[in-house]
Amino acid sequence: MNADLAPAVLAEYGQVTRVALCDYLRPRHPQRHLYGLAADYPRRGGRMLRPSLCIATARAFGAGLDDAVRSAVALELLHNAFLVHDDVEDESAARRGRPTLHALHGVPLAVNTGDALALLGLRALIDNRRTLGPRLAMRIMEEAERMARESIEGQALELGWRRDNAMSLSEADYLEMVLKKTCWYTTIWPSRVGALIGTRSDRHLDRFIRFGFFLGAAFQITDDLLNLEGDAHRYGKELAGDLWEGKRTLMLIALLRQSSAREQARLAAFLAAPRPARRGPDVAWVRERMEAHGCFEYARRVAHGLAGAARSEGVALYAGLPRSRDRAFIDALPAWVLART
Amino acid sequence: MNADLAPAVLAEYGQVTRVALCDYLRPRHPQRHLYGLAADYPRRGGRMLRPSLCIATARAFGAGLDDAVRSAVALELLHNAFLVHDDVEDESAARRGRPTLHALHGVPLAVNTGDALALLGLRALIDNRRTLGPRLAMRIMEEAERMARESIEGQALELGWRRDNAMSLSEADYLEMVLKKTCWYTTIWPSRVGALIGTRSDRHLDRFIRFGFFLGAAFQITDDLLNLEGDAHRYGKELAGDLWEGKRTLMLIALLRQSSAREQARLAAFLAAPRPARRGPDVAWVRERMEAHGCFEYARRVAHGLAGAARSEGVALYAGLPRSRDRAFIDALPAWVLART
Repeated sequence: MNADLAPAVLAEYGQVTRVALCDYLRPRHPQRHLYGLAADYPRRGGRMLRPSLCIATARAFGAGLDDAVRSAVALELLHNAFLVHDDVEDESAARRGRPTLHALHGVPLAVNTGDALALLGLRALIDNRRTLGPRLAMRIMEEAERMARESIEGQALELGWRRDNAMSLSEADYLEMVLKKTCWYTTIWPSRVGALIGTRSDRHLDRFIRFGFFLGAAFQITDDLLNLEGDAHRYGKELAGDLWEGKRTLMLIALLRQSSAREQARLAAFLAAPRPARRGPDVAWVRERMEAHGCFEYARRVAHGLAGAARSEGVALYAGLPRSRDRAFIDALPAWVLART
Repeated sequence: MNADLAPAVLAEYGQVTRVALCDYLRPRHPQRHLYGLAADYPRRGGRMLRPSLCIATARAFGAGLDDAVRSAVALELLHNAFLVHDDVEDESAARRGRPTLHALHGVPLAVNTGDALALLGLRALIDNRRTLGPRLAMRIMEEAERMARESIEGQALELGWRRDNAMSLSEADYLEMVLKKTCWYTTIWPSRVGALIGTRSDRHLDRFIRFGFFLGAAFQITDDLLNLEGDAHRYGKELAGDLWEGKRTLMLIALLRQSSAREQARLAAFLAAPRPARRGPDVAWVRERMEAHGCFEYARRVAHGLAGAARSEGVALYAGLPRSRDRAFIDALPAWVLART
């Protein structure tokens, strides 16, 4: 497999999406307290995995670029809407190497700006009508409604765990949350909508849930590992920000399961404290305990298993289609997801 | 005119809407941290002006109840979504006689729940397809996108004024903000969508912007007067909550314009302070200065003028239609809006 293929396709479709995105992020009144803020996160860059997967899937199934690009734009806008609200809800300090929107402009303007981004996404979904007709446009809208609902439900699960200071969660709890919060909008929706646009048919759409779940969960676990292990400059978020936020990652869940009674007590106190009351030495201790209990190794193994399953599912899903660069890109994604640094 | 008509129609269509709303607010997983919270505000009651105006307009133009009720439900869900986010953004303490959602459950869960309510509204708009077909359903979706955009822009104007501590605003600034933030979703959208459903035509739709603007602005100014003058039990929000929040009402804008240099300085300091730093005696002083400068009287005059204009516009808009209870209800609304206590 060509290791440069995934980055090349991401760069190409990412650029196509960014250009089309500009139509929706033009300066408008009120600019200073709304549309200027709405354009901030999308301009900070990003890997463009989601829109690229959507476009590649549509093309692998025979659609033209123009049929898919507006759905890709809608997804990117909805993604940024989630990021703005998630950052408020998680009390995150940094996003893609800069302060979060609410850190810059306050919670009220950030919440309102997140709403504006979601609405710009809705606008793009309505505009699908022009190229795809009202019936398919409405069908994609329905997919967007499901995807957003899954994301919000996943977010509620995760916020609920933090609010209740949940101390005994299982791998299954974690995977349900990730299926909803990450996979639906990162991998399932792009694949399903790409297939809808390419085939103009609903047949076999549910198979994409399995593929997207395996791929998306491998992606999220790797992302969480990078947050704890990576260096701050390359990763963009605060280093170990997930620990400061008390986020229930697979590594934290494993640590909670394996720690001694004494460690448990210290972890419970650490996680119960409000974020500003947490201290650097405690964060370092949690990370060190994860290392000692082999939590990183364990999470890496789970991510590898999921990526392998995604690869098998992908082979089966795309088996009947002609060989193409788009198909090869989708084949390469499981390996790319694991190899990110 | 029959003074009991408006309350009777509001009670009837309000009840129809509430019953249909139950379909969208059924208990579901995750209930405790999402759908249970989403059902809270809608269950607190409310006058049901918006859904009733939508249904009455559709019926006045010849539609059946079933054609309009799902749009009324969508509007009510979107309205509650706005309320949840607005309460976070305005740091409001009470809503309909109880603590606000974020006061009960924290900002993170409240923001996520507002997103869920908006999404339930989107679901209802998609469901319109079943009774109205994909084309008209998509057209109403487009109206919803415009309405939500206007609301968010209006909210951005108002939040921007607070953030900049704006001290010299005009009546025109105020009316632009109210047109966007209140009128579009309270009166313009219900009238336009009702007419769309009743006539299945886009013709003359822009005339409803004028009617809805006059009626909605009269409604908002009266609401703000009630907040400052009414008694807390009947009104449901905190008494004078708008002053605690530094909200730029027509009365505050008039006061800022008419006050002496010394009063201006004290007002600027009061408004610049963060909400928790404001003090009861200062709130009482601002209210007393409004009284002394005739700001309530002035705002009441403006509201009366707007209601009169709404009445004339309404007469012209509905002139060609057969007499009906629905038409009489719409005729009665300008007077009802002013007479609320």
